[in-house]
Amino acid sequence: MDTVFDPSQSPFPSSEEKRSAREAKRAAVLRAAVQMFNERGFHQTSLDDVAARLGISKPTIYHYLGNKDQVLLECVTIGLGQLIEAAEQSRQSAGSGADRLVAFLVRLAEINMDDFGRCVIRTGDEALAPDSRARFRALKRQIDTDLRGLIAAAVADRSIAHCDIKLMAFTLAGALNWPARWHEPGGALAPEAIARQMVAILAAGFLPR
Amino acid sequence: MDTVFDPSQSPFPSSEEKRSAREAKRAAVLRAAVQMFNERGFHQTSLDDVAARLGISKPTIYHYLGNKDQVLLECVTIGLGQLIEAAEQSRQSAGSGADRLVAFLVRLAEINMDDFGRCVIRTGDEALAPDSRARFRALKRQIDTDLRGLIAAAVADRSIAHCDIKLMAFTLAGALNWPARWHEPGGALAPEAIARQMVAILAAGFLPR
Repeated sequence: MDTVFDPSQSPFPSSEEKRSAREAKRAAVLRAAVQMFNERGFHQTSLDDVAARLGISKPTIYHYLGNKDQVLLECVTIGLGQLIEAAEQSRQSAGSGADRLVAFLVRLAEINMDDFGRCVIRTGDEALAPDSRARFRALKRQIDTDLRGLIAAAVADRSIAHCDIKLMAFTLAGALNWPARWHEPGGALAPEAIARQMVAILAAGFLPR
Repeated sequence: MDTVFDPSQSPFPSSEEKRSAREAKRAAVLRAAVQMFNERGFHQTSLDDVAARLGISKPTIYHYLGNKDQVLLECVTIGLGQLIEAAEQSRQSAGSGADRLVAFLVRLAEINMDDFGRCVIRTGDEALAPDSRARFRALKRQIDTDLRGLIAAAVADRSIAHCDIKLMAFTLAGALNWPARWHEPGGALAPEAIARQMVAILAAGFLPR
């Protein structure tokens, strides 16, 4: 009997399979790199270290992502992309302005405890090359604009107190960025629980109500 | 007429004058170094750069302070010393537990907008050599212990709301550490005014009272 040709059994990957394999390799390099940058510091981590952890060669990393500056820019761009998406989802969600603000703040804190978000906070502007730095700053300004917009909308519908919007944004963001520095992945309290408790503290203030 | 010998006019400096000149030189090196670390980043600043700004040689810096790791350790130790002193003064001040906590928080934010405090926040543990890192961490733990003590005392005399003391400390410190990253020296609003407004936001919370 003749063997019927089954494309799913072909030893030659389809262009879709090739694309997907390439994506998976790129993602694996980024995940290893961001974790090592967070653990050891960007300046203390070489692409040789990242390649060694993955059992690949440095030219393979260059092939998928480029040089160390480009790898870092990609890591922080992913983290900032998660934040921009969270702001967009919060703006679409139901409830008062305060409800939408709280939803975003909880996500902000959670992302800051995750690999790529931690990297955003732990990376000083000065670590990046000038072009990458300009892009990094522009994305951070976008998050700041999004946060101020959510605060302004909540002041407008009177679901939060009247305030200086810029200083409120800096105060809230600072408190919720900080877990990127102190939170240990795998700690006793889950990131979502920490995020909710911190946002509750910021909502109520420390003086008795 | 014989000239009367006046020791204050002697061309030979006294040991007190020598000590004081040495202190002034050491302080000038530290001030130049901390400002350059804050502007450019620690890894992007060499001791040659610091020496050039002061018009001195790198061996002169080694003479007064030691190597780059020792210069950084000295900078962060000064900043952390200011914070420890502020905590001590707050504990001694009059009023309720909340009053003492507020006094410390305002100083915390102010110090974080000043040269040495900014350097504390902008320095990752991983930038320091292992021995220096251990000392840096121990001093940071001291500040955290001081802050938690002030919060606990304010909870105990019921001048602030009941709370998870550890998470409250992280939330307040994060909000007030963050100006070290965004505050531009010489901005429109004075550091003390920014500090007071941020602490008022944290005291009252963002929900209407």
